[in-house]
Amino acid sequence: MSVNELVEGIEARQVPALARAISMVENARDGYEALLSAIHARAGAAHRIGLTGPPGAGKSTLTERIIHAYRAEGHRVAVIAVDPTSPFTGGALLGDRIRMESVTLDPDVYIRSMATRGELGGTATTTREICDILDAFGFDRIIIETVGVGQSELSIAATADTVVLILVPESGDGVQALKAGVMEIADVYTINKADRPGADRLRQEIEVMLGIRRGNAYRHVAPHHHPTPAEGRKGGKAESGATGTDAWEPPVLATSALENQGIDELVHAIEDHATHLRTSGELESRRRARLARHTREVVDRTLRHLVWRDRDGEATLQNGLEAVAGGDVSPYELAQDILTGTQREDTNGR
Amino acid sequence: MSVNELVEGIEARQVPALARAISMVENARDGYEALLSAIHARAGAAHRIGLTGPPGAGKSTLTERIIHAYRAEGHRVAVIAVDPTSPFTGGALLGDRIRMESVTLDPDVYIRSMATRGELGGTATTTREICDILDAFGFDRIIIETVGVGQSELSIAATADTVVLILVPESGDGVQALKAGVMEIADVYTINKADRPGADRLRQEIEVMLGIRRGNAYRHVAPHHHPTPAEGRKGGKAESGATGTDAWEPPVLATSALENQGIDELVHAIEDHATHLRTSGELESRRRARLARHTREVVDRTLRHLVWRDRDGEATLQNGLEAVAGGDVSPYELAQDILTGTQREDTNGR
Repeated sequence: MSVNELVEGIEARQVPALARAISMVENARDGYEALLSAIHARAGAAHRIGLTGPPGAGKSTLTERIIHAYRAEGHRVAVIAVDPTSPFTGGALLGDRIRMESVTLDPDVYIRSMATRGELGGTATTTREICDILDAFGFDRIIIETVGVGQSELSIAATADTVVLILVPESGDGVQALKAGVMEIADVYTINKADRPGADRLRQEIEVMLGIRRGNAYRHVAPHHHPTPAEGRKGGKAESGATGTDAWEPPVLATSALENQGIDELVHAIEDHATHLRTSGELESRRRARLARHTREVVDRTLRHLVWRDRDGEATLQNGLEAVAGGDVSPYELAQDILTGTQREDTNGR
Repeated sequence: MSVNELVEGIEARQVPALARAISMVENARDGYEALLSAIHARAGAAHRIGLTGPPGAGKSTLTERIIHAYRAEGHRVAVIAVDPTSPFTGGALLGDRIRMESVTLDPDVYIRSMATRGELGGTATTTREICDILDAFGFDRIIIETVGVGQSELSIAATADTVVLILVPESGDGVQALKAGVMEIADVYTINKADRPGADRLRQEIEVMLGIRRGNAYRHVAPHHHPTPAEGRKGGKAESGATGTDAWEPPVLATSALENQGIDELVHAIEDHATHLRTSGELESRRRARLARHTREVVDRTLRHLVWRDRDGEATLQNGLEAVAGGDVSPYELAQDILTGTQREDTNGR
């Protein structure tokens, strides 16, 4: 299929065109940027939800429940599951995918796995592009599911409008990540498997930490501001001195995906956040910032492709490394060779 | 001073030329890459030591002790202190610098602070380049001191040949970083302020975690390998299935910088690691990998400078963002404008 045919197929909501377009972008095949350029104006209506948490937190089951809840409301739901390439967890994730059978026969649900290939910065860019395709196709809720609570998983989840962090009572990982400031970006927290021991304690720990964070924000930004009781209300809104807009206070929820408990509350919290983003004007500023970031990344990717792929820079590098290690050529001279696509065979000494 | 004069000044071991050369590189002033290119062949003799740990671990006092120990052996010692730009910690660090007075009058000791400016990837590249200048000048031991136990500080410390992690009994940060796999790269651990309560427990915790790490390494790499008692000896060498070379077992030491205790053992451990790197052939392979990484970073930096600085890409981006947000122009079209240096005033709608 040509780029034009794929664009027409997406406009006509044909699933084979969707699948091929995503593969084209995932593999950076010729014409993928022309395709993305052509569908740009059609994307922007969907709400994008990042869902992350440690392995075993029940993300896939929870995702399945969220899909059902959204379908009951008439939404069309797409899921991008960003799988780490690790062979150790790959099998388990595949198992999770299979368990999602209950929703895969629904034509208004689309689930797609995506490998990370270890290059995480690039993965965030590609994730954003696949979201654009799904958005242009007409899915109005897009879930980006990643495994982990580290900076790298988060950079992917952060391509979303709303970030949901899923924790479990057994796992101290999430709390440690919170302490390290990694998960401060989450908009909604949920403790899944909340019937297990330790759920209440974990919830309190998270609330205390979020409280500390707010305290810090007040201290640095508006030292003379005293929150009113209304501002302190969970899930409510507090005036923030930082932006002049209503601040969102991340709710800490409890769910049991297996028992199908707390799902409606979780979906409502996500939708509340979506409403908050719209009414506060934050959605527009966030999306504009995302477009700026995306444009910068496209520029840098184009340059990297030009040098490292099209001009075979890595071969030039390996070819000249002996001379650099020997002191005959400097890294700066070799860098110039790579930039101009010049092979330096004579000085290699081989 | 011209680039040639600076190179001659460095060759003649003139401190003013050294200071100017470092400033030139730190600020990426015209000719800085020509300077670095010219001194490349003269660098490579120094052993580079990365020293990192949480704030308050006593890094500066320990650095001062290490300097004295190296001076007693006739070594010429340079220190690069990579300071975070945070205004909150800046003052404390300045205090640390002043306390280093006892060594600053020695002409064979050179101490230099370097700001990180928040762009940490770039800081690692610049740190490597300042090390090259100090190396070419004739310092044979270069200490790179960073504050913190996170990934970003570590990427700077990792520009060194030997990485030393300093922990204190009070701080759980280091252990949490270890758990998160961040500090697995350290070659030598020391518990400073080892006279305080909890030092023994922390040491045991670290040793257990290092033991677990080794166990994992064996499990993944050589499942049927059983370590012999000789391999298990601390500070000794174990056959690693991964590289085929002798593996280094990171020693866990105890120091008290204030009481001047354990310093000789720490310096011996660093020198043991230096010897290990040389005799195992790892030094050559590590330095070659470092030169390759540096060359790649120089290429990418040149491209970024070309587009974002010389062609004023950010102005083009901001200028076209309105049209991108409105759907009239795609990020890919704007990216092309940025790459070619074309302003898109007509479609901006302003």
